[in-house]
Amino acid sequence: MLFQLTILGTSSALPTSNRYPTAQVLHVPGRFFLIDCGEGTQTQMRKYKIGFSKINHIFISHLHGDHIFGLIGLISTMVLLGRINDLHIYSHSELQKFLLPQLQFLYAEEIPFKIIYHPLNFKKEQKIFEDKKVTVYSFPLSHRIPTCGFRFEEKPVLPNLIPAKIEEYQIPIRDRQRIKEGGDFIASNGQLILHSELTTNKHQARSFAFCSDTRYDESYIESIRNVDLLYHEATFAEDNRELAQSTYHSTGKDAATVALKAQVGKLIIGHFSARYKDHTIILKEAQAIFPNTKAISEGEVFQVEKVIGH
Amino acid sequence: MLFQLTILGTSSALPTSNRYPTAQVLHVPGRFFLIDCGEGTQTQMRKYKIGFSKINHIFISHLHGDHIFGLIGLISTMVLLGRINDLHIYSHSELQKFLLPQLQFLYAEEIPFKIIYHPLNFKKEQKIFEDKKVTVYSFPLSHRIPTCGFRFEEKPVLPNLIPAKIEEYQIPIRDRQRIKEGGDFIASNGQLILHSELTTNKHQARSFAFCSDTRYDESYIESIRNVDLLYHEATFAEDNRELAQSTYHSTGKDAATVALKAQVGKLIIGHFSARYKDHTIILKEAQAIFPNTKAISEGEVFQVEKVIGH
Repeated sequence: MLFQLTILGTSSALPTSNRYPTAQVLHVPGRFFLIDCGEGTQTQMRKYKIGFSKINHIFISHLHGDHIFGLIGLISTMVLLGRINDLHIYSHSELQKFLLPQLQFLYAEEIPFKIIYHPLNFKKEQKIFEDKKVTVYSFPLSHRIPTCGFRFEEKPVLPNLIPAKIEEYQIPIRDRQRIKEGGDFIASNGQLILHSELTTNKHQARSFAFCSDTRYDESYIESIRNVDLLYHEATFAEDNRELAQSTYHSTGKDAATVALKAQVGKLIIGHFSARYKDHTIILKEAQAIFPNTKAISEGEVFQVEKVIGH
Repeated sequence: MLFQLTILGTSSALPTSNRYPTAQVLHVPGRFFLIDCGEGTQTQMRKYKIGFSKINHIFISHLHGDHIFGLIGLISTMVLLGRINDLHIYSHSELQKFLLPQLQFLYAEEIPFKIIYHPLNFKKEQKIFEDKKVTVYSFPLSHRIPTCGFRFEEKPVLPNLIPAKIEEYQIPIRDRQRIKEGGDFIASNGQLILHSELTTNKHQARSFAFCSDTRYDESYIESIRNVDLLYHEATFAEDNRELAQSTYHSTGKDAATVALKAQVGKLIIGHFSARYKDHTIILKEAQAIFPNTKAISEGEVFQVEKVIGH
């Protein structure tokens, strides 16, 4: 099953000439989840071929400009393109106070689709979305203003019946779904054949967590424990430890320590401060603690997958 | 004297993967004038090395999103960078209704610099800015909502005294400024020496006009007559004539016809619709009418100069 993350932006608040502010898209079957929406997100979506009409759910970690300034442009483009489907935005409830006056200014009448605002809980972890294939949770981070991380969990899928066993025990069609769902089978000679003997399940549900912006804080480690892929901000290196403290941001070391403690499969880092022309220093610092770390770039695509031995 | 235009964005409302919405910077000695500010303008400024602190005057042609969505990001970056100087914005008076609620949302207290709003006149041409070197005029265009074009005129500079003449007629220092300013000179033998014989002036004041967005309309031709460089939008080619009419935009043919009638020196066109993957068709259409036409690209720099024979 598809579980694929596309990076649209990697910079922090100050603009740089070649990086965009935070935005990522998680693509699961039938859905594209947009996570944060810095200025220029719609241009990046065009560039990396993420259709505007496919976005029905937007997750906003917090209300700093570099995570929200792309919303009005994206929504305006959706209006121009004739969108009619509901758009769900998961964010601090105050986001409406930012967006509504802009929409009222730009459009004399109501726009032709509904924006449905889902307020986040900044006190504790919460399930915020669920369909047949994916569950999404928000959980509080530790930043200057209320901020949430997000965890996207693939749901387990039913095992497959082993064809040779169907043949061997002559399992009727009417019993098969029940066995897939966990049932055993009584063969024609009265023998009990266990579910585990009849089925195989190579699929393992995968998970991705997004943590931006936050300072190092162990309070959210349980919310990201064992995820297969963790995005964690790493705005600074340890050379700017004090600045990281005072601005409630993480260093490469912080991000890697979180990844190590939460025993994640793979760590990707971004939200690099404009003061680092080259982020190698941040990456090396993280890799020294958590070797399976990668610094993200615009346009990069990650297949979320189980890491062997994880 | 420097009179240099840098193109930051060339697209129209719908985003494309490789173009930015409208923004241009005119650089004259000591000043950078920003004209329109589509989403991503600050990124483009970084890319093309236009310092944020150097922008003190922003001219906004009209209040459609693709001309204003970059303002809040740019202003936020100015706040982050510790700006204290006044920022002058020339636009429809309603712009405040768009920007103020956003600023109030983002900043608990007043931002540390003043934004001074200068309302444009959409009925007639008006002088909106003047310093020792440049005068800026706004003039109404013909779009779906109130829209102004802008004309930037270099002021004439005083001629230079010809050194050989100073020597020949022994012109005292005390008389020289008066002669530069237009006076004649009476030589020691009583002979009247005319200003024109004593001075030389190779400098010719240059001018640039910006027309976006507008449909073809002869009403603004006098406002751009004889400018050395004209930027005129050319959203469509004639194959979309009806769409141009209904959306109040110009075709390549329209832009060139305006340039021809206004007898400008050089025409540059942009604001290309996303439906044209290649804008050659728009350019060729314009060049057939006004040969000295160029299609603009992001990052291009034009020296505004007198065209020979113009």
